[in-house]
Amino acid sequence: MSTAVLDLTKDLIRRQSVTPEDAGCQQLMAKRLEALGFTIESMFFEDTLNLWARRGQGKPLFCFAGHTDVVPTGPLEQWTSSPFEPDIRDGMLYGRGAADMKGSLAAMVVATERFLATHPELTGDIAFLITSDEEGPFINGTKRVIEVLESRNEKITWCLVGEPSSTKNLGDVIKNGRRGSLTGYLTVKGVQGHVAYPHLVDNPIHKAAPALAELAQTVWDQGNAYFPATSFQISNIHAGTGATNVVPGDVQLTFNFRYSTEVTAEQLQQRVLAILDKHQLHYSIDWILNGLPFLTDSGELVAAAVQAVQHVKGYTPSLETTGGTSDGRFIAPTGAQVLELGPCNGTIHKINECVAVADLEPLADMYQHILQQLVAK
Amino acid sequence: MSTAVLDLTKDLIRRQSVTPEDAGCQQLMAKRLEALGFTIESMFFEDTLNLWARRGQGKPLFCFAGHTDVVPTGPLEQWTSSPFEPDIRDGMLYGRGAADMKGSLAAMVVATERFLATHPELTGDIAFLITSDEEGPFINGTKRVIEVLESRNEKITWCLVGEPSSTKNLGDVIKNGRRGSLTGYLTVKGVQGHVAYPHLVDNPIHKAAPALAELAQTVWDQGNAYFPATSFQISNIHAGTGATNVVPGDVQLTFNFRYSTEVTAEQLQQRVLAILDKHQLHYSIDWILNGLPFLTDSGELVAAAVQAVQHVKGYTPSLETTGGTSDGRFIAPTGAQVLELGPCNGTIHKINECVAVADLEPLADMYQHILQQLVAK
Repeated sequence: MSTAVLDLTKDLIRRQSVTPEDAGCQQLMAKRLEALGFTIESMFFEDTLNLWARRGQGKPLFCFAGHTDVVPTGPLEQWTSSPFEPDIRDGMLYGRGAADMKGSLAAMVVATERFLATHPELTGDIAFLITSDEEGPFINGTKRVIEVLESRNEKITWCLVGEPSSTKNLGDVIKNGRRGSLTGYLTVKGVQGHVAYPHLVDNPIHKAAPALAELAQTVWDQGNAYFPATSFQISNIHAGTGATNVVPGDVQLTFNFRYSTEVTAEQLQQRVLAILDKHQLHYSIDWILNGLPFLTDSGELVAAAVQAVQHVKGYTPSLETTGGTSDGRFIAPTGAQVLELGPCNGTIHKINECVAVADLEPLADMYQHILQQLVAK
Repeated sequence: MSTAVLDLTKDLIRRQSVTPEDAGCQQLMAKRLEALGFTIESMFFEDTLNLWARRGQGKPLFCFAGHTDVVPTGPLEQWTSSPFEPDIRDGMLYGRGAADMKGSLAAMVVATERFLATHPELTGDIAFLITSDEEGPFINGTKRVIEVLESRNEKITWCLVGEPSSTKNLGDVIKNGRRGSLTGYLTVKGVQGHVAYPHLVDNPIHKAAPALAELAQTVWDQGNAYFPATSFQISNIHAGTGATNVVPGDVQLTFNFRYSTEVTAEQLQQRVLAILDKHQLHYSIDWILNGLPFLTDSGELVAAAVQAVQHVKGYTPSLETTGGTSDGRFIAPTGAQVLELGPCNGTIHKINECVAVADLEPLADMYQHILQQLVAK
């Protein structure tokens, strides 16, 4: 079996691009884009290779965004076929990155080729923002490319991220935003000592417990039409050296908010501090804002993407903001409209990751249809 | 400087008897006791050497109890002099075990020698129960010797344990009992998952927090004339793998009760389970009863010990049940009257452990005075 999208997907899977390695994927894409008149910029930040490829110098600018890096394979012996040797069985293409997101990258390139083949005189602007740091620390990838673009006032109007957004059928879900992610690192302090001398100790676990109970029970907001309610989860708690007879001097916690556009990170921080203070805790706290929430609730990009799915598949996609974060969080703050549309995500990050071969060409069709609506007009 | 008690204390300190090593301490003591007509039984259980030395076959039986093992030295470079080379500076004898409790062992032996020298025809019974497992796991020491004695119906009437009971001045505190110690190992179960999908997880930290708050606030009893109130302390809590975005599947806790004679271990267990059940937790729990509480509130032994301190030092000791556990917990359940009287405990288990040289002979005087009152009469 051979189709343009399948062949390029397989070529990309063969490149062992575990984060932050790109392993030649961007070069493969860049060659195809260069042949289409794109200007190629490779941006190498620390250990991370990024590709900024652009055709045209005007406005508005349509951008495909994605990543060439993949998560580690996990135990090789559990894979039915080698994770870096694409293998088709029962209509599924197996390989690490097949769904997340080398199939999307191939579909983007092929869609662009076909679109430009039918519009040789086109002046509309198309770009590719591709990183090899999406699955890793998120430091030297999309974030830094966007910093460069912002510094030269180069603005993306519409950004289509190729993350595998679909659940049961190709295009059934388009992600039109993501919740914010805010992590707190909390240390509640007490006074260490021997359990036999309770008057000499101040047990930080005892002191923290009522505050943690209140934090866990707090309703932070009700969400809204696009976002589920903000959620709070304590992910780690540690205190004690293992000795049963020693009261520890402090207890350390990590918690994470996934939050809607109904609250801000600052409001969440203030409300957490108010609860800790109300319980008269002696504590220190550090915060990391992993990503601001973003939402593209309407506009040309939403309309074009919905129409593309309807055109190719005959059904209407639902717009959702659930799930983890994506590099869209770095692009949306520039003012761009940002959507995610890609293949089904049931096997991503797992052993025997795969994508339906029958979804690859329709995905390229959708991308081409979006280009047709936004760039050709 | 040389006195009988000081010399023997120094000889014992030179033997590097870190738990469970005895390093010849018991042999040194046994030789002296054998010369006084004691029958020597060495009981070797697993890695632990124990000494049961007895003079006479009648009743009542007075017993000195103690341990030859010492805790590890800690960093050698922090010691001013070598921990196993006895050194006198400013009136203090330095060395690991000087206060806990080789000084007491030497005072016991010398007191017995002097007492018997003045009562050559005595028929009253005296014994020594010495272990090398008091600072360690408490499995193959006093506990097993008592099992042997019980199996042959050999009963101790009065037991004086040489633990360093004094705080500021020699003999200012006699321990006439100890609280019970009950440890619980609790696992609260939930459902692991990604923080971005809160509807799919059941956070065990969130579920446990209100129950822990209630346990920490519960008043278990008010204590009584001899015991402080029962105390509850969570000593360890652990959940989470370090990843900030994963809700852990369970949270593991260790807690410890130090409890008075106003409650039983069974009552405490039932009350803990009732609180966990009330909060509808899914959990598993294991218990270890480290020691039953014991109390010798009055009787000939208390009277003799109080009188001995008054005779030697001129002040009246206070009777207390505070502090950690001791091997007395294994002896008291046989029906014996049990007290602890020894040197000041300010430096035990620490770097530069020491005992006042000026306290060693008075301690032997006290022990001899107790023998005089209980055995010579």
